[in-house]
Amino acid sequence: MSHSLTSVFQKIDSLKPQFFSRLTKAIQIPAVSSDESLRSKVFDKAKFISEQLSQSGFHDIKMVDLGIQPPPISTPNLSLPPVILSRFGSDPSKKTVLVYGHYDVQPAQLEDGWDTEPFKLAIDEAKGIMKGRGVTDDTGPLLSWINVVDAFKASGQEFPVNLVTCFEGMEESGSLKLDELIKKEANGYFKGVDAVCISDNYWLGTKKPVLTYGLRGCNYYQTIIEGPTADLHSGIFGGVVAEPMIDLMQVLGSLVDSKGKILIDGIDEMVAPLTEKEKALYKDIEFSVEELNAATGSKTSLYDKKEDILMHRWRYPSLSIHGVEGAFSAQGAKTVIPAKVFGKFSIRTVPDMDSEKLTSLVQKHCDAKFKSLNSPNKCRTELIHDGAYWVSDPFNAQFTAAKKATKLVYGVDPDFTREGGSIPITLTFQDALNTSVLLLPMGRGDDGAHSINEKLDISNFVGGMKTMAAYLQYYSESPEN
Amino acid sequence: MSHSLTSVFQKIDSLKPQFFSRLTKAIQIPAVSSDESLRSKVFDKAKFISEQLSQSGFHDIKMVDLGIQPPPISTPNLSLPPVILSRFGSDPSKKTVLVYGHYDVQPAQLEDGWDTEPFKLAIDEAKGIMKGRGVTDDTGPLLSWINVVDAFKASGQEFPVNLVTCFEGMEESGSLKLDELIKKEANGYFKGVDAVCISDNYWLGTKKPVLTYGLRGCNYYQTIIEGPTADLHSGIFGGVVAEPMIDLMQVLGSLVDSKGKILIDGIDEMVAPLTEKEKALYKDIEFSVEELNAATGSKTSLYDKKEDILMHRWRYPSLSIHGVEGAFSAQGAKTVIPAKVFGKFSIRTVPDMDSEKLTSLVQKHCDAKFKSLNSPNKCRTELIHDGAYWVSDPFNAQFTAAKKATKLVYGVDPDFTREGGSIPITLTFQDALNTSVLLLPMGRGDDGAHSINEKLDISNFVGGMKTMAAYLQYYSESPEN
Repeated sequence: MSHSLTSVFQKIDSLKPQFFSRLTKAIQIPAVSSDESLRSKVFDKAKFISEQLSQSGFHDIKMVDLGIQPPPISTPNLSLPPVILSRFGSDPSKKTVLVYGHYDVQPAQLEDGWDTEPFKLAIDEAKGIMKGRGVTDDTGPLLSWINVVDAFKASGQEFPVNLVTCFEGMEESGSLKLDELIKKEANGYFKGVDAVCISDNYWLGTKKPVLTYGLRGCNYYQTIIEGPTADLHSGIFGGVVAEPMIDLMQVLGSLVDSKGKILIDGIDEMVAPLTEKEKALYKDIEFSVEELNAATGSKTSLYDKKEDILMHRWRYPSLSIHGVEGAFSAQGAKTVIPAKVFGKFSIRTVPDMDSEKLTSLVQKHCDAKFKSLNSPNKCRTELIHDGAYWVSDPFNAQFTAAKKATKLVYGVDPDFTREGGSIPITLTFQDALNTSVLLLPMGRGDDGAHSINEKLDISNFVGGMKTMAAYLQYYSESPEN
Repeated sequence: MSHSLTSVFQKIDSLKPQFFSRLTKAIQIPAVSSDESLRSKVFDKAKFISEQLSQSGFHDIKMVDLGIQPPPISTPNLSLPPVILSRFGSDPSKKTVLVYGHYDVQPAQLEDGWDTEPFKLAIDEAKGIMKGRGVTDDTGPLLSWINVVDAFKASGQEFPVNLVTCFEGMEESGSLKLDELIKKEANGYFKGVDAVCISDNYWLGTKKPVLTYGLRGCNYYQTIIEGPTADLHSGIFGGVVAEPMIDLMQVLGSLVDSKGKILIDGIDEMVAPLTEKEKALYKDIEFSVEELNAATGSKTSLYDKKEDILMHRWRYPSLSIHGVEGAFSAQGAKTVIPAKVFGKFSIRTVPDMDSEKLTSLVQKHCDAKFKSLNSPNKCRTELIHDGAYWVSDPFNAQFTAAKKATKLVYGVDPDFTREGGSIPITLTFQDALNTSVLLLPMGRGDDGAHSINEKLDISNFVGGMKTMAAYLQYYSESPEN
């Protein structure tokens, strides 16, 4: 370890009481972005954070007003919380790293089943755990970037990069208008950013640190089958008219089998082949079918082997059937023949699937299946929305720096993970700023981010700050961007 | 024509103004059983009808209290409308005919698109049409039984049978508690009833009178597939867990094909074979594929030939898929993997299908299909409710009398029809009283019973009353019951 990091790490340890105090003050503000009645608290928290930035020597602090929240909304003229932009350093000879985080939180009430008041940080040093809403998602990680600056300053070490913050207050409510802001500031406030680091996800499990380099995309479709002009009585018309629901079962049933295999021709060919280099990443990842079963509360896994589960979650497409609109959907019995039904399904996309080509294959498949039924009904399939997959190069400069940092702090190489779901803002940063994005999680898979008793292990908090510090240091020393 | 019927028919013609007046007074009472705020009007109408019965010489009039309406209901302690029991005659040497009708009506408002006030009878003698809510369903036919008694009396002819009325006020709202009453009175008020006649359905078309001798039954099922203990995020779990919806599409898709053919083994074998005698009944029935297409507003008929359409509506089973409970069913897109889904379908049953055996075949089929999927999920199929089919002998004494009556009045043999839907009360009468039931419709297929501008042709009103009179006369003369 370089001398500079040793002293920074020492300061992170010794400043712990100060960092706990900062986190305590932040957690006690119930900044629930989805609760319109608490919107002023979200603003209060933004103010608190901007004060922390100011005290720690950040400059050019901007509370960017995103205007009025668009509908659907109950409160008229409700202002969106500000995005907090700020800088620490602006040395043209250094690399510039943008760090994203969010200060808003999920709702929480003691009555939901919390052991302690959710908006009062409970620090249990004996158990090594801090509990409170937002502690891991994402107030703890967000404040950590400020803490790291404090530690560098206290150690008398020069901060290795120029830091830019982009802290939003609407992540738990759809990151409204953030996309537009990023695109607008790409050549403004964010000009010159070399890399983006997001600390807003989690380790896969509870023991091994991870770096996340990919997310699947999502194409959402509906197949619409219509026949009669209005719903019909099944006593009178059952057996004499072609029922749209019967046709829909055939079309939806032709998309994927019970083993999860997608039956649409041409999709497999679009999936990037597994390279030996990528394959090697899966071998050491700490995960098991037991962990999957624990998460679903069942034994419904399609695979027994860790590698198969992870690859099908991260690097292969999947097709889920979500439901049917227009048919009977309540409890009990209703003898209607629905006249027009919408079958909803989505495909999680991965490299190198092209969204337009996928849509064309899906439509071709559904049209052909429907045609084979010789039904007098009408059928069409349409895309409701698509969001692209994201995958980064886990061997690039940022990831290499983060890997080295993790090894230094935790003594092990991190697992390189992807996630099955989408975080659309990741791709927006990558595309708008034309930079690499690193997902650098701080907490563990069992932190209960959106659940009761949200926690962050103190060792992850401290280890996470040290990892951030070392990542910035190593990245600054890297010959490439 | 016997002399007695000639004079009764003359009186039916000459008493027309009086019958119009009685119908006008009845129609103006908005006896909407589904509208709790109008419940007092339903009671008013019961009172009006009991007065008419009394004036016409019916005796032993009982307004049977069915107690408080069971939930779901908004108004606490809402009384059910009474069932009106009464007799005309009690001569042990005569046959006894029970006539069923209902005095409640469907909701109606001028704003729905009526040409005239729905609760004001509009008699257009030039066009030969009466318009008003309830005129054909079922106030007109109900009052006609009283009118027929009046006509016999005015003509000085002896009434040929003992008449028993069972007039209810909740038919449009599920005939609550009527079943219990019929069973209870089978050996009480209804003791000695030889035949039951219900005038509460319609001609198949607009030109040819019909007698109805069959109704299909209905077995309603749900297939329940469950896997995970809670709904899952399709980004994280799509492709790695067995999705209940995917399995359900396979099971539901295996039940019936797009041509309406039921694919469950053993059902065809239970269906009574078509006899030459029954087949002959279809040949002359006035109906066409164009009429079916007009009713569905589409060209979705599975058959071109009249006989095929009618047989598949009346005498063959059908399977309809109604919807899915537990899955996404709203507009738009939601990326959930439903944890537990209920696929709803029903089978319209016909002679000689046995409900218990059918359920066992359905369960065997669904279990086998699910097993073939090798899914780790759990699947079971259960019966939600069953209502038996009803079929009468269209060549028995009642039908023969009604056929002869129809020929006398309209100059043509009636079509013998069945209906695809269920009228459970028909079977209750047949089983509880151990008698034959005749469905003797008065109105036409285009009367718009539950729609706007409900009408009854004056010629059907008058012809219907004459048919009722002649049916009672001929039935009384029949050597058999």
